Amino acid sequence: MEKLNAYLQYIEDELSSLNINGKPPELYDPIKYTLNLGGKRIRPVLTLISCEAFGGSKELALDTALAIEVFHNFTLLHDDIMDNAPLRRSKDTVHVKWNSNIAILSGDAMFVLSQQLLLKNETASLKKCLVLFNKTALEVCEGQQLDMNFEKLEYVSIPAYINMIGLKTAVLLACCLKMGALIAGSSDDDAQHIYNYGYNLGVAFQLQDDILDVYADPSKFGKQVGGDIISNKKTFLLLKAMELSKLNHYKESELKMWLQAGQEHAKEKVEAVTSLYNFLGVKEIALKEVDKYHQLALSYLDKLNLRDNQKIVFYEFAHFLMKRDL
Amino acid sequence: MEKLNAYLQYIEDELSSLNINGKPPELYDPIKYTLNLGGKRIRPVLTLISCEAFGGSKELALDTALAIEVFHNFTLLHDDIMDNAPLRRSKDTVHVKWNSNIAILSGDAMFVLSQQLLLKNETASLKKCLVLFNKTALEVCEGQQLDMNFEKLEYVSIPAYINMIGLKTAVLLACCLKMGALIAGSSDDDAQHIYNYGYNLGVAFQLQDDILDVYADPSKFGKQVGGDIISNKKTFLLLKAMELSKLNHYKESELKMWLQAGQEHAKEKVEAVTSLYNFLGVKEIALKEVDKYHQLALSYLDKLNLRDNQKIVFYEFAHFLMKRDL
Repeated sequence: MEKLNAYLQYIEDELSSLNINGKPPELYDPIKYTLNLGGKRIRPVLTLISCEAFGGSKELALDTALAIEVFHNFTLLHDDIMDNAPLRRSKDTVHVKWNSNIAILSGDAMFVLSQQLLLKNETASLKKCLVLFNKTALEVCEGQQLDMNFEKLEYVSIPAYINMIGLKTAVLLACCLKMGALIAGSSDDDAQHIYNYGYNLGVAFQLQDDILDVYADPSKFGKQVGGDIISNKKTFLLLKAMELSKLNHYKESELKMWLQAGQEHAKEKVEAVTSLYNFLGVKEIALKEVDKYHQLALSYLDKLNLRDNQKIVFYEFAHFLMKRDL
Repeated sequence: MEKLNAYLQYIEDELSSLNINGKPPELYDPIKYTLNLGGKRIRPVLTLISCEAFGGSKELALDTALAIEVFHNFTLLHDDIMDNAPLRRSKDTVHVKWNSNIAILSGDAMFVLSQQLLLKNETASLKKCLVLFNKTALEVCEGQQLDMNFEKLEYVSIPAYINMIGLKTAVLLACCLKMGALIAGSSDDDAQHIYNYGYNLGVAFQLQDDILDVYADPSKFGKQVGGDIISNKKTFLLLKAMELSKLNHYKESELKMWLQAGQEHAKEKVEAVTSLYNFLGVKEIALKEVDKYHQLALSYLDKLNLRDNQKIVFYEFAHFLMKRDL
């Protein structure tokens, strides 16, 4: 998808030429720092792609695309305080480099900046975009709270887990696509179809992330393979393994034992839990689930009132997003 | 100002019937708790007053007034985390009653809710109100950051201090009034005049607060008289005293000594610093400054293209706000 790089470069250039030079610097420097940490910029690119596919220009959707990226980085900034994360993209997080107060406040300011960027949209879609964006922002807060709640629970059902990743991740991807469509002047039906495509693709992507964390090729994976297992993160794989092992007392005890193992046994724990996953067949179940959401996403493309050549970009994007090595 | 109580009751009733019952409760309960802590509700009342004075109904401005109150409480919630404040209106702060993570996230959600309430405004003023509101929100962040910066400085100039309280407090009062005017369909000139009235009244109010903290009648003052002196808070009085005592080495040394005194000498410190303020005449200088901003505020009422009987409410409000016992 060669065009993707052009979109990416466009976003990167425009993001770095955003005028974020207000005073005092203690408020604005962390914002510039956060936006310069890089990232895949998938969300703003989705807004541009969608706007062009529905007949608008990428320039028309630019400010909205930038708003989404600023908002996404605001959520990462506040999430990093909540998770007490020391690093983001291999660099100090804002609350480490400055302090928590500055991280809270510059995050708040980024949220305001995202609203200001949205308000630059001069098309008739402005109000619809603002309503959708703020509904989505509230859902992202709900998803983050559910994620924090889940950490303290012993078990979470699979539907509750899918709901959480839907709120925390998928609704924003869906929102990006729908705003691009609305800005281009799409019908409400088409805007909803592309939203549903984005939502289901987002769920598929997040589930694939869970699988990759265990089964990725370590030489190609950016993070430590097995990190989720070490931290007992309630991923689809662990929750499915908990569910299935209830039928096998021996395996259930083994899983529970490893969930209580200390950090000093990390390597054995990753090996043992991965073996358990293999024994229970959770990888295959997870892959089927990824495929289910992927196909569901594509099914909404059939419903779009667009010519096939206008839809190609959405098929290509889904392929690009889901092709990561397993 | 009997009508004020009716406005207050209207806001209180509508605030408590806001539907804040989303899930998970860990996100929404702290929001309900915060909005139920009470408060003077001055800001939303200003929006209603202004809308009615410019010929609109209070119902027309209701959602915007509520948005302002939700936003204001969001800033208090995040400020309380940053200040590590244990109490707000004599009750546990959210980060104490729940925890910091929940306080950060439910604050973020309150900010979204305020935008959603603003979006219910169906008059032609919507975009202008959103632009003004978000500009103001960013200024409030800047004011809070300046306030935190000032805590670490030895000295702050009076103009820098006035600028800080302008951003942290006055712009929001000004914004409330201007939004009410815009919703009623006022001219841009009148909207700006009422903004300037609110801004200067806000500065006068904040300076009066500084004076009250030292000179209020303890039996009528809600807080500990002398609290600012004990905590070395850089108020107008302290900054002016620092400035004036430079001309008198003996008094300068005495002030510096008290600024380094430990908590065990709190009572003597309040007495000694108050005596110093009296000697240097900073109370009178501060009162003159209050009067200057108060009169400046009223001067903008002369410029309003309204009949005198429509303006009365603004004179009455200024009187109500500034009449606190000194």
